Amino acid sequence: MNTSIDKLFDVVAVKGHVCVGLDTCVDYVPAAERQNKTSAEAVLAFNKALVDVTFDVCACYKVQIAYYEEMGIDGLRTYSETLKYIRQKGSLVIADIKRGDITDTAARYAKAHFYGDFEADFVTINPYMGMDSIAPWLKEAVVLGKGAFVLMRTSNPGMRDFQQLAANNGKKLYDIVGDKLSGLAAEHHGKCGYGLLGAVVGCTERDEAAQIRKNHPDLFFLIPGYGAQGGGALDVTLLLRNGNGGVVNASRSIITAWKTPVNHGQKPVNNSFAAEAAREAVVKMRDEILGAL
Amino acid sequence: MNTSIDKLFDVVAVKGHVCVGLDTCVDYVPAAERQNKTSAEAVLAFNKALVDVTFDVCACYKVQIAYYEEMGIDGLRTYSETLKYIRQKGSLVIADIKRGDITDTAARYAKAHFYGDFEADFVTINPYMGMDSIAPWLKEAVVLGKGAFVLMRTSNPGMRDFQQLAANNGKKLYDIVGDKLSGLAAEHHGKCGYGLLGAVVGCTERDEAAQIRKNHPDLFFLIPGYGAQGGGALDVTLLLRNGNGGVVNASRSIITAWKTPVNHGQKPVNNSFAAEAAREAVVKMRDEILGAL
Repeated sequence: MNTSIDKLFDVVAVKGHVCVGLDTCVDYVPAAERQNKTSAEAVLAFNKALVDVTFDVCACYKVQIAYYEEMGIDGLRTYSETLKYIRQKGSLVIADIKRGDITDTAARYAKAHFYGDFEADFVTINPYMGMDSIAPWLKEAVVLGKGAFVLMRTSNPGMRDFQQLAANNGKKLYDIVGDKLSGLAAEHHGKCGYGLLGAVVGCTERDEAAQIRKNHPDLFFLIPGYGAQGGGALDVTLLLRNGNGGVVNASRSIITAWKTPVNHGQKPVNNSFAAEAAREAVVKMRDEILGAL
Repeated sequence: MNTSIDKLFDVVAVKGHVCVGLDTCVDYVPAAERQNKTSAEAVLAFNKALVDVTFDVCACYKVQIAYYEEMGIDGLRTYSETLKYIRQKGSLVIADIKRGDITDTAARYAKAHFYGDFEADFVTINPYMGMDSIAPWLKEAVVLGKGAFVLMRTSNPGMRDFQQLAANNGKKLYDIVGDKLSGLAAEHHGKCGYGLLGAVVGCTERDEAAQIRKNHPDLFFLIPGYGAQGGGALDVTLLLRNGNGGVVNASRSIITAWKTPVNHGQKPVNNSFAAEAAREAVVKMRDEILGAL
């Protein structure tokens, strides 16, 4: 089976490392495109316009479900349609859901996000409840060839509160999580060698990056924190292995790139305009990272 | 303002400690009630029947969103309707969503679950990403008088993997989380004295229970693990304070009580039958806990 992780590995080699984050709220949609539409409708049309002109220059998409849950049932319909649209284009989508629950409940979540209305290629998972909360996801991933990224060391300042706590064996919590994931990767990996379950590792702490990659050569990383949060192309390269092994998420810097003052000339500020600006931002970021390798 | 935590404190004093978990999948609905209905419709009718006959003997309800996400958009409509129905009855509802994300995203989740289609009185939150992922929930809770329970020490076996790790200061991770929550409770609490943000603490580890209560007198606990997972009434009492300060969740033992072989007599096995069995299970559990105080 060609698993999601194999597909992602292959696409990174061709299209680079950029993961476009569709954390879309209606304020990000040009005003002209909000006329006579509900917020959920406007966001869906905007997302589709962005996907249309970025899918050939990005590795994958990450859709942050919180932005859609905020809009209630209608928002979740837009979430569902966004995932379907990305997959119809032949692109890969990461459902950024950060779910985590006891075994029986985790199995329900895995059904929810690997099948049906909300089917994605990858999900994100929160490990706080322990490995029996992760096992049901792995079980489905093995059957379906899907994948997941488990939160290991995130990019927000608050990650220091718990993730960087040193246990009495000297290891930090995030590294203990990583060790468990490497253990799973040894048994369940794609043809590319990376585990079906990867990890979320921010590119915001340069001094830990090389060690994290060295300790976990078998984990594919979903990398947040690029740009506004302080991570740069060099920080990313430290988390890669032979130039692959990770995708780098950016959301607002791409999907609101159209808001940056530019010389519009005669162009109307609509979804096409926003999509072209997004494409430029993706290409720039892709080339920054490729240039740093 | 009469906050959700004050209301919960007051209702426990009158109706006891039982939190009815509506972790409802369609297999829990009597076959006769599934005829000519979608799964989502059958679950909604079943939930309403249960609420109708239990709201006067339980403290509150907890609705586990995973069971509804599994059914996609239709399931989430049933989730929304279930929450509305409980609140229309004047009962309190805990949205068991275990969300957790970076600040901006957490603020979206807070909007999603404290307003609109998915409005609840309380939510559950996962602390792995740190206190800046919790702050947006607290901010909304203060404005709206809502509440939340943060995962501290859960009732599943896997909680030993990370929650019980000892940090190099000798404290366990769950206790470090609890200390942060107690810090917040000192500043933001209801008239009853308990913090707007409480904690999820399972009743499955008796030897830690008294110490947890002693260390965190200001935290109201949402207590899972009763019954099938091994916790009993005595374990619960160790987590209470003056007989209050916690609600005890039970889901399957209540909502599938109708499946236990009994002498049906001439009664048809329908939602009314299931609801009566649920009520009996709630009353029995309520009295077990009250009897152990």
